Amino acid sequence: MSLERIARNRCFGGWLERYRHRSETLDCDMVFAVYLPPQAESAPCPSLYWLSGLTCSDENFMQKAGAQRLASELGLVLIAPDTSPRGTDLPGEHDSYDFGSGAGFYLNATEKPWSDHYRMYDYVTQELPALVEANFPVSDRRSISGHSMGGHGALICALKNPGRYASVSAFAPITHPVECPWGKKAFSNYLGDDRDSWRQHDACELIRGELEERLPLLVDQGEADDFLAEQLKPQLLIDACADAGHPLELRMQPGYDHSYFFIATFIEAHLRFHADALRKA
Amino acid sequence: MSLERIARNRCFGGWLERYRHRSETLDCDMVFAVYLPPQAESAPCPSLYWLSGLTCSDENFMQKAGAQRLASELGLVLIAPDTSPRGTDLPGEHDSYDFGSGAGFYLNATEKPWSDHYRMYDYVTQELPALVEANFPVSDRRSISGHSMGGHGALICALKNPGRYASVSAFAPITHPVECPWGKKAFSNYLGDDRDSWRQHDACELIRGELEERLPLLVDQGEADDFLAEQLKPQLLIDACADAGHPLELRMQPGYDHSYFFIATFIEAHLRFHADALRKA
Repeated sequence: MSLERIARNRCFGGWLERYRHRSETLDCDMVFAVYLPPQAESAPCPSLYWLSGLTCSDENFMQKAGAQRLASELGLVLIAPDTSPRGTDLPGEHDSYDFGSGAGFYLNATEKPWSDHYRMYDYVTQELPALVEANFPVSDRRSISGHSMGGHGALICALKNPGRYASVSAFAPITHPVECPWGKKAFSNYLGDDRDSWRQHDACELIRGELEERLPLLVDQGEADDFLAEQLKPQLLIDACADAGHPLELRMQPGYDHSYFFIATFIEAHLRFHADALRKA
Repeated sequence: MSLERIARNRCFGGWLERYRHRSETLDCDMVFAVYLPPQAESAPCPSLYWLSGLTCSDENFMQKAGAQRLASELGLVLIAPDTSPRGTDLPGEHDSYDFGSGAGFYLNATEKPWSDHYRMYDYVTQELPALVEANFPVSDRRSISGHSMGGHGALICALKNPGRYASVSAFAPITHPVECPWGKKAFSNYLGDDRDSWRQHDACELIRGELEERLPLLVDQGEADDFLAEQLKPQLLIDACADAGHPLELRMQPGYDHSYFFIATFIEAHLRFHADALRKA
């Protein structure tokens, strides 16, 4: 697994770097970004994985969220993967913003032709951490966060992998993809008609199921988010956590929308939340 | 002068807004961005104008610099104009990244056909402040900053307008455009062959001339900036300020390049510098 560095910028006393590598899991070349705080020069640091939303690449978060300032202060490595396989050209793959390229939904597709490449769940939970931990000054303490589709991704990655993450948070996550238009479109195409497999990739369903571990969970949701009622449905996550006795701090934020201006406003609270959990892990 | 609001995002407790308006100075429609901190809801706030570099629009700074966090804390209104007239189609206007659209150089062109529209100096020092101060909760206390071409712009706008700004700062400014490739290309096309008029738009020349006012001046410059030696020449600014007894804090930043990651790292110092000067103004 060779890594080609394609960009490097000094940022808040550390380094923001972008790498291209051949993903065996996805059977294509992928790019990811890593921010190495100054503390990583002297000792391995814990890592926070950030999963981005529809249409994003590894770049949006690193350019717009302002997270490097906090990562530099707290000694966190930030890792931002892309949102889907790239460089492939499957039928219809590039036709819509909410399916195919830029919209991998952090699951392993079982339906052809997607199952040959669209295995973002294994990529972000297994292949990428193994690659990062073998090549960078990163400890095996990990947390995970994300936005919208990536908030869904962060939730299912944490819920399905007990012991792998110290904490999970999300901005405006898709909480119940089996019952929203984005989720139904993606799941039916990637996973086929088997609703049981859908439920294994749904945060609310997983929280209501049998969990080996209950992680600290922080969610911010803008009240002026255009996708709130139809796609995101935060009340369903509140209900599922209440019914299952799962910890949740969900903060409704008046006036905030779905943009990175919302994320930038509240990213500090999320990074401090993860740094606290990682210190205890 | 009617203003059409084309975007509005809640951000750090305030509002980031974008407006389209007809500019009489530029004889075209223009878009600018304004960040209104929470303090602006109860009283007029001082303003910081940000002039962007080559190829940028009003959006780069607001999306990438992380300045709204500080503006919200300090009670500063941020105003980001575009970098050139837009919607025009003059011969060759869109052919290169360093001249014409996206490259107005914050001067009033005297050469045809540019002189019909390319009057960014009057736009950013006169028309836009008048528009902003008539329509937003903004006091008449102003400071100015910018990056690269916009650092040049901030310097000449402040140096040529005693009493108009409380302080000036720049990131990686073009310090001596009359003697660098970017400046020579722009000035010869916009201003013609009259080198006297060139010198009136050159920070080093202005500082060496007779000034009615000597403003606090803060400059950050990355040592790994690809444009350092050929285009930016910070030593010439240091020399001019030393010779003229002009105040200057110029900080060379090891490892930093020309990107917004550099700006984001040091924007806090600039906003605190301007807030201090505006409090005293």
